[in-house]
Amino acid sequence: MTVSSLVQLRLVWCCWTLPRWQMNGHKRPLAVWTSATVQWTLKQKKLAELYRIPMSRPSILSGTSLLGKRALSTTSSSPKEVMLTSEQYGVKRLPFSHVSDSDIAFFEHLIPGRVITDPDELRLFNVDWLQSVRGCSKMLLRPRTAAEISEILRYCNKRKLAVNPQGGNTGLVGGSVPVFDEIIISTALMNQVISFNSVSGILVCQAGCILENLNQYLEELDFIMPLDLGAKGSCHIGGNVATNAGGLRLLRYGSLRGTVLGLEVVLADGSILNCLASLRKDNTGYDLKQLFIGSEGTLGIITAVSILCPRKPKSVNLVFLGCQSFSQVLGTFTTCKGMLGEILSAYEFMDDKCMKLVENHLKLSNPVTGNPFYILIETSGSNTVHDEEKLNNFLEHVMASGLVTDGTVATEDKKIKMLWSLRERITEALTHDGCVYKYDLSLPVERLYDLVIDTRARLGKTAKNVVGYGHLDGNLHLNITAESYSHSLLDAIEPFVYEWTAQYNGSISAEHGLGFKKKHYIQYSKPQEAVLLMQQVKAMLDPKGILNPYKTLPASS
Amino acid sequence: MTVSSLVQLRLVWCCWTLPRWQMNGHKRPLAVWTSATVQWTLKQKKLAELYRIPMSRPSILSGTSLLGKRALSTTSSSPKEVMLTSEQYGVKRLPFSHVSDSDIAFFEHLIPGRVITDPDELRLFNVDWLQSVRGCSKMLLRPRTAAEISEILRYCNKRKLAVNPQGGNTGLVGGSVPVFDEIIISTALMNQVISFNSVSGILVCQAGCILENLNQYLEELDFIMPLDLGAKGSCHIGGNVATNAGGLRLLRYGSLRGTVLGLEVVLADGSILNCLASLRKDNTGYDLKQLFIGSEGTLGIITAVSILCPRKPKSVNLVFLGCQSFSQVLGTFTTCKGMLGEILSAYEFMDDKCMKLVENHLKLSNPVTGNPFYILIETSGSNTVHDEEKLNNFLEHVMASGLVTDGTVATEDKKIKMLWSLRERITEALTHDGCVYKYDLSLPVERLYDLVIDTRARLGKTAKNVVGYGHLDGNLHLNITAESYSHSLLDAIEPFVYEWTAQYNGSISAEHGLGFKKKHYIQYSKPQEAVLLMQQVKAMLDPKGILNPYKTLPASS
Repeated sequence: MTVSSLVQLRLVWCCWTLPRWQMNGHKRPLAVWTSATVQWTLKQKKLAELYRIPMSRPSILSGTSLLGKRALSTTSSSPKEVMLTSEQYGVKRLPFSHVSDSDIAFFEHLIPGRVITDPDELRLFNVDWLQSVRGCSKMLLRPRTAAEISEILRYCNKRKLAVNPQGGNTGLVGGSVPVFDEIIISTALMNQVISFNSVSGILVCQAGCILENLNQYLEELDFIMPLDLGAKGSCHIGGNVATNAGGLRLLRYGSLRGTVLGLEVVLADGSILNCLASLRKDNTGYDLKQLFIGSEGTLGIITAVSILCPRKPKSVNLVFLGCQSFSQVLGTFTTCKGMLGEILSAYEFMDDKCMKLVENHLKLSNPVTGNPFYILIETSGSNTVHDEEKLNNFLEHVMASGLVTDGTVATEDKKIKMLWSLRERITEALTHDGCVYKYDLSLPVERLYDLVIDTRARLGKTAKNVVGYGHLDGNLHLNITAESYSHSLLDAIEPFVYEWTAQYNGSISAEHGLGFKKKHYIQYSKPQEAVLLMQQVKAMLDPKGILNPYKTLPASS
Repeated sequence: MTVSSLVQLRLVWCCWTLPRWQMNGHKRPLAVWTSATVQWTLKQKKLAELYRIPMSRPSILSGTSLLGKRALSTTSSSPKEVMLTSEQYGVKRLPFSHVSDSDIAFFEHLIPGRVITDPDELRLFNVDWLQSVRGCSKMLLRPRTAAEISEILRYCNKRKLAVNPQGGNTGLVGGSVPVFDEIIISTALMNQVISFNSVSGILVCQAGCILENLNQYLEELDFIMPLDLGAKGSCHIGGNVATNAGGLRLLRYGSLRGTVLGLEVVLADGSILNCLASLRKDNTGYDLKQLFIGSEGTLGIITAVSILCPRKPKSVNLVFLGCQSFSQVLGTFTTCKGMLGEILSAYEFMDDKCMKLVENHLKLSNPVTGNPFYILIETSGSNTVHDEEKLNNFLEHVMASGLVTDGTVATEDKKIKMLWSLRERITEALTHDGCVYKYDLSLPVERLYDLVIDTRARLGKTAKNVVGYGHLDGNLHLNITAESYSHSLLDAIEPFVYEWTAQYNGSISAEHGLGFKKKHYIQYSKPQEAVLLMQQVKAMLDPKGILNPYKTLPASS
C-alpha cells in the first residue's frame, strides 16, 4: 500500500456535527437522532420504538462510565446529510450478487414480517452513529434465532449475497453499517437471557441483548457485567464481543478474551458453530471462539454469548487529584496499585487543556485547579469501611510524598456523578472547540503522554489545542482541534501519529477496532506475516467474502 | 470414530509406579527421577545439572499450590521401564522423513554443541513425567533464539522432518514427548527475561523461563506471576501458554487467555510471527496469539511471551472448613464470593473419602473431622487487618447460618503449609490406595459432585474408593481406586464418565489438555463442526503436519 493511498483513505474525524443529547437515566428525549425532516424524525421514532433503538444515543466516544449511570448533556443538534461511503472514500463494489425479488420472497417466507425493504426505514440502519459513513442496503433482516441466521447465511453464501451483521450500531470505525448494498442482519430481536448461574456467575444470553439491560438484570441478582461503556444503552453484547469492546471495567475485570467463556457463531456457509460452553476451564482443542472475538463480524455472526460476571460491589468511591507532571501520574498509579490493590477499579488521567475545555465550553467546575494533570480514581469493593480506610491511607501517602498536590473525594452519588462528568464530557467539550482530529491509541504506559507533547511541539500554532486523556491501562485518547478542517494540518498529523505509535510497538486502535475506516492502517500495528495469516483465516472461514466485506483487513494482494 | 476404537485408545491411569519425591523448598534430592541402573541415574543427574532439569519433579497432579512454597513428601521409588508409546497404543508412524547424517551435520553447523544424539542422554527427554509414554527420538536440539528455531523449522519443513517442541516436560497427557522419532526442540536455553515494566506489570520473557524462576524474579519487584501450579519448579512459561495451564490462581487472576498479552511464535515453515505486544488493549485485526495458547505446540512453537502480572499480595490467610453436604459447599462459595469478594484467591473442596486416604496412607491429621465435605479457602490482599476482619465476619456468618459445621484458620506459614498439604497430597495418597483411574473434568458448578455420586452408585463394590475433589471454578478431579487393574471396571467407568460430562456440556479435559492420550475423546466436549474447523486451522498453519504430530486432534477423516 502506498503512502498516497493511506492518505486518501485516512480517517478525518472532523467537520461533522455530532448528535447531541440529554440523557437522564432511562428518559431519553427523541429529538436527537436528527433527520432532515420532521416527518422522517417521527417515522424513525416509530421505528425506534418498534425496534428498541435508542433515538438519543449515549456517549460512546468518552470511553468511561460510572458503575451506575452518569448524566450527559448537550444542547441542540443540526441535521446533516451523510455522504455515501462509496463516494466519500472512492471504494469499488466487489462482484457480489444484487438482491433480487426472488431473494426478498425467499426471506419473506423464511422470517415473515421481519424483512425491511422500505428505503426510509432502512436509512437508520445504513448510517453509523457518528453520521460519518453511509451504505445503501436495500434489505434488513431481523432473525430471532441462530437457526434463522443459519438459513439466511446458507442462502446468501450460495447466492453470493454480501451481508452486514449489525448489533446496536454504535461502532466508531464504520464497521457496523454497509458500505454498499450488503444485506443488514440485525440481532435486535435476539434479546433473550438463556441462563444465569448465581453460583458460578456465568450468564448465557442471545447476542442481541443490550448491555445495559443485561447489567440491570444482573444487578437484581447481585452481579454486574464485566464490561461497561458509554454506549451500554444501545450496544448489543454480540457487538461488544465482535468488536472486543474495552471500556471502564477492563482495568479491574480484564478483557473479553478472558471473561467470555463461550460463543455460538453462525459461519458464512450457514453452519452453526456451538462453542457456547459455560466452563471456566476447557482445554479440549483450539479455542475457536477467540477467532470471533474482535473480528468485527467478518468471520461469522455471533448469535449467543456465555460470559463470566463479577459480584456487584457493595462500596464505590471516587477521588479526583491534581499532579504536577505525568511522571507523578505514573508514580501515583504505581502507589495506588500497591495500596488500593484489589479494590482499584478505574484510573483515568486528563491534562489541564482537557479541563480548560470542559470548564470553558460546558461551564463545569474543576474542584482542583492549577495542575498540569488530573487523575480520577475509582475504588469498588465489598466493605465500605475497609475501602474508605484504604483510600484515606493512600491519599495521605500520595499527598505527603508530593506525588499529588491537591484532591477531592466523593462517596455520595451526586458528587461521584459530578466528578465523573469532568472526565466523561471531555469528548463533548472538544466538539465545541472546532474541527476535531481524534486518535485512540495503545502505548507502553510510560510513553503514554510523550505523544501528546511531541504532537504539540510538531504542530505548534497550526493546531488550536492538542489534548490527551485516557485510561492508565495504556490507552491514550489524543485529540487535536483547529478552527476548521485543514488538509495541511492533517498531513502534519498523519502518518506522524501512526509512525510514532508504531515506533513504540503501540496499537493504532486500542479499543475501537479497524472496521471500515482503519483497515488500511493495520500495518502500523501488525507485521506483514500477521496480516497475511489473518487474510488466510478470513479466506478459510469465508471463502466468498460475504461477511461484512470491505472491513477489518485490507484486500489480499 | 467407533466405540471400540475409543475403548482401545482410552487412557488408563493406573498400574504404573508414580515417581516419588521429597521436596523441601529448593532442596531436591536426586534419587527420585529413577532409572534402571545407578550408572544411568548418575548420568541423568549430570545431564539434569547441565540442563537445569529438576531430577525430583514437583507435584503436577494436585493442581494446587500455595502462593509461597509447600513441601510435598513421599517415600521411596521403584524403577520402571516405560513401554514405547507406538507399541502400547498401536500407533502407525506417519510418512515423515528419517533423520539422516546430513541432517545432523546441518544442525551441528547451525547450533554447534547444542545437538544431542546420544541415546542415553536422549532417554530423559523421550519419556514423560508420569513415565507413561515413551518416544524414540534420535535428536534433541537446544536453540537459544527464535531465529535459530526459525532456521530449524524451515529446514525440517522442507525435509518433512517431524518435530516435538518440549518445555519442562511436565505435561500429563503425553503431549510433551515424541511418539516416534520426532526431533525434540527444547526451549531450555531460551530462559531470558526480556523486560519488565513495573508501572504496567507487564513481563516479556523467552519461552524457556521456568515459572518458579519468573515468580521469584517478580517477587523481588513486588509482583507475582498470574499463574501458579505444582510443576512450577520445572515447567516453562512457553509450555504453560502452549497448554493453557490453569492452576490455583485462575480463580483470582483469570486464565492465560486474558493475562497473556503477546506471543512470538515460529510457524511450521520457519516464519516468525511477532505478536509480542505489551499492550492491554489492541484491536487491530484478529487476535492470532490466541490460536497458539492451548494448541500444545501443534500450530507453532512459542518463543517469547508477554504477560500481565499482578502485585504481590501483602496478606495471605487460609481456612479449612467442614460441611454436611455439597450444597453447603456451594452455599458457602456463594457467601464467600459476596463477603470476601476481592480478596478471595482460592476455593478448593474435597470429600471425606479423600481425607480418609490422606489420614490413612500419609498419616496426616485432619483438624476438622466428621464431615462429609471439606473446604479450603485462601484469601490474599493488600491489608492484613482488613483481610482478617473480612475473614472473621465471613466465618461468623457461615457458622451461624449452619452452612459450615466446624473449621480452623491459619495465618502463619507453618500452619498454612500443613493445611494445604491436606489438599495437595490427595493425589499422592491415592497412589497408595491401589490402581487409580483419574479424570480431570470441567462441569457446571452445581453438577460438580453429582458425577462422583453417580459413579459411586454405578460402580458399587467393584471399586475400592470413588473420591472427588477439586476447584470451585468448576474443575472436578474424579478418582477411582481398585486393588488392581480390571478391564471390566474400566468398561464400567468409560465411556460413562465422558458421556455423563458431555450430557452437562462439560469438558473432558479441564486443564490438562488433550496431548497424545486424550485426542480421541475431543468429540465428547466439542461438536464435529468445531473439530473440523480445528483440523482446517491445523492444515492451514502446518500443511505438512510436522509440528507435534499425533497430538491434540484426531486425524482428519
